[in-house]
Amino acid sequence: MTNKQILLKSRPSGWPTADNFTLADAAMPKPGPGEMLLQTLYLSVDPYMRGRMNDVKSYVPPFQIGEPLQGGIVAKVVSSNGGSFPQGAYVTGMGLWANYMTTDGKGFQPVDPTLAPLSYYLGILGMPGMTAYVGLKGVADLKEGDNLFVSAASGAVGQVVGQIGKNMGCHVAGSAGDDAKVAYLKDELGFDAAFNYKTSDNLFRAVKEANPNGIDVYFENVGGPILEAVIASLNFNSRVALCGMIANYNATLDDMPPGPRNLALLVGRSVKMQGFIVSNYPDLCKEWIGVGAGWIKEGKLKYRESVADGIENAPQAFIDMMSGKNFGKQVVKLADD
Amino acid sequence: MTNKQILLKSRPSGWPTADNFTLADAAMPKPGPGEMLLQTLYLSVDPYMRGRMNDVKSYVPPFQIGEPLQGGIVAKVVSSNGGSFPQGAYVTGMGLWANYMTTDGKGFQPVDPTLAPLSYYLGILGMPGMTAYVGLKGVADLKEGDNLFVSAASGAVGQVVGQIGKNMGCHVAGSAGDDAKVAYLKDELGFDAAFNYKTSDNLFRAVKEANPNGIDVYFENVGGPILEAVIASLNFNSRVALCGMIANYNATLDDMPPGPRNLALLVGRSVKMQGFIVSNYPDLCKEWIGVGAGWIKEGKLKYRESVADGIENAPQAFIDMMSGKNFGKQVVKLADD
Repeated sequence: MTNKQILLKSRPSGWPTADNFTLADAAMPKPGPGEMLLQTLYLSVDPYMRGRMNDVKSYVPPFQIGEPLQGGIVAKVVSSNGGSFPQGAYVTGMGLWANYMTTDGKGFQPVDPTLAPLSYYLGILGMPGMTAYVGLKGVADLKEGDNLFVSAASGAVGQVVGQIGKNMGCHVAGSAGDDAKVAYLKDELGFDAAFNYKTSDNLFRAVKEANPNGIDVYFENVGGPILEAVIASLNFNSRVALCGMIANYNATLDDMPPGPRNLALLVGRSVKMQGFIVSNYPDLCKEWIGVGAGWIKEGKLKYRESVADGIENAPQAFIDMMSGKNFGKQVVKLADD
Repeated sequence: MTNKQILLKSRPSGWPTADNFTLADAAMPKPGPGEMLLQTLYLSVDPYMRGRMNDVKSYVPPFQIGEPLQGGIVAKVVSSNGGSFPQGAYVTGMGLWANYMTTDGKGFQPVDPTLAPLSYYLGILGMPGMTAYVGLKGVADLKEGDNLFVSAASGAVGQVVGQIGKNMGCHVAGSAGDDAKVAYLKDELGFDAAFNYKTSDNLFRAVKEANPNGIDVYFENVGGPILEAVIASLNFNSRVALCGMIANYNATLDDMPPGPRNLALLVGRSVKMQGFIVSNYPDLCKEWIGVGAGWIKEGKLKYRESVADGIENAPQAFIDMMSGKNFGKQVVKLADD
C-alpha cells in the first residue's frame, strides 16, 4: 500500500498551473486512540479551493505550502481504533488529497451507498447540491412561478439549480460555455432557455431573450460581464444569490474584471444580493439529502459527472474545472470500492 | 397672485444644467369638487429626481418634457372645496414645482408645525430621515455595537444615518467631499471618524483607518470607488443598504464608472447588499416621525439645512445638490408661512 499525496508547492498568482502542485509519497498513517484509518475513494475539486490557495483571510484558512491540499472526499473506513464509525462504513467530509488519512471522525458524515452512487455525495447530494438548494431556498427565497436564471448552468451547482427550479414550477434559463452544454441544458435537463455566453455577441440581449419575463432570482456562479447583463433584466424585488463567481477567483485586484457598472439599478428595483456559505445552513443541507435523493429515485433529477482517474491527475482535474473544460461535476476517483 | 412653475425643458444626458429647465407662468388652478388649493411653502430637491429625468422604466414614471417637475413639498391649504384637509392646515406629500396646485389630498399627510419647523418635514422628519431609518432598521438590521460606515455623510440622509448610529450605541464613521463637512461630522454630529474622500490618496486605507474593527453595516449613498474600498473592509455577515448611489445617476451605461472589482468578496463574507425604496416601508416611516421628533426635542439629533429662496432658484439648487455644493439638506423656500 502506498500513500500518495498532492501538496501545494506554490501559490498561484493568477490561473493555477501544474507547477503549483507536487505529487509526494507519504508514510502510511496509523490511527491513534479514538481514530480511524480512511481510504479515499473519491476526491472533489471545486472552485472555492482556488480561494484557499491565496494567503488571505477568509471563512476558511488558506492552504499551507508543502502541505496536502484539502477538499471534500468520500472514503471507506479501513480500520477503527475506537473511532466514531465502524470498519467498512462509508463517510464523507473534508479530507486530504491523499490515498489514506486518519481522523477522529469529527466533521464526517455517514453516507448510504444504496441511496445513490458514492461519488454523488461529492456532487448532487453533497456540497454542490446543497449549495444549489441553500442558495435558492435559504438565500433567494425561490417561489413557484418565479423566473430563475443561472450562470455556469451545466456545472456541478448550476445543473442542480436549474432542475430544482423546474421541479418547483419556475421558468428556468441558463448560460454555459459551449454548445454541447447548452444543448444538454435544453434537451436533457428541461431548461426553458439557454445560451452560449462565449459566442453571444450581445450578452444583454441574450439574457433578455432567455428571460422574456425578466428575472426574479439569479443564481450567480460566474462573476464578470454576465452579472451586468443580468442586472439589466432583474425584476422589482428580485434576489441574487452570490455563489462561486469563478471568474474572480484567479485574479488579483488589479487584474480583476470591472464590476457591474449598473449596480445603481439595484436601488430602484429593490434587489437583494447576498453572498452565502453553504455550511452556515446545516438544516437546509440535511433537508436536501432527503429531497434530492427522493427526486433522483423519481427520475426528476438528472446528474452528469466528469470522472478523472488517479490522485496524480487531481491537479489537472482542478485546473480543467476552473477553466470550464469539465462537463458536469468534476471528481477524481482514487480507488474502487 | 402669480403661479410660477418649473418645467422640464429637455432630458439631461449627463449632469443636469440650467438649460434643462424653464420657468413658466401658469394660470391659478381652481379646486374642483372634493379638492383643495395648496400654496407651496417649501420644495425639496433630492438625488432620486435625477433618475426621473431619464426616459427609463423605474419604480416611478419619468418626468414629462414640458410638464412641471414633481417632488416633495410642504404646503398650506389655502381653500378647500370639500377636500380632505381644512383651510389653514399644513400638509406634506408629492407635489408640483409650482407656487400653487390643486389636489384631492391623496398621498398627502398632515404635519404638525409645533413639533418642528415646517421645512424639517422635507428632511429629517421627511423622506431623507425616513430613508436613513428604513435603511438602517428595515434593510441593514443595525444593532447596538455594530460598526457603521456611511458615505455622503453630511448630506440629507447621511447626517441622520450617523446620528441614528450614535444614538444606538454604534461606532460611526463617514466620508464627505470637503474638510468643513468632515469637521462638522466629527465636531458637531459626534462621528467617531470621518475623512475627505476627494483629498484621500488611498481610499482603501482611509476606509480601513476610519473603521478599525471593520464594517458591519454600510449605508451606501454614493457609488463609484468608495464602494470598492468599503467591500475590502466588510465584516462577516455584514449588510449593505443601497440607497442613492449619486455618482451613477448622471451616467449612461458607457459613461458609468466601473463597478466594484472585488464583488466576489461578498461570497466568503456572507454579505447582504440590498437596494430599497423608502415608500415600501410605511410602518417604519411612521415610526420614524415619533422617534426622530423625540430625539430632536431631547437634543440628540442635530440637523443642518441649506435653504434657497424662490422657485426661480430651484433648478440651480437641484444642480448644486447633485454636485455636492450644498451643506446639509437642500430645500427651496417659496413663501413665508
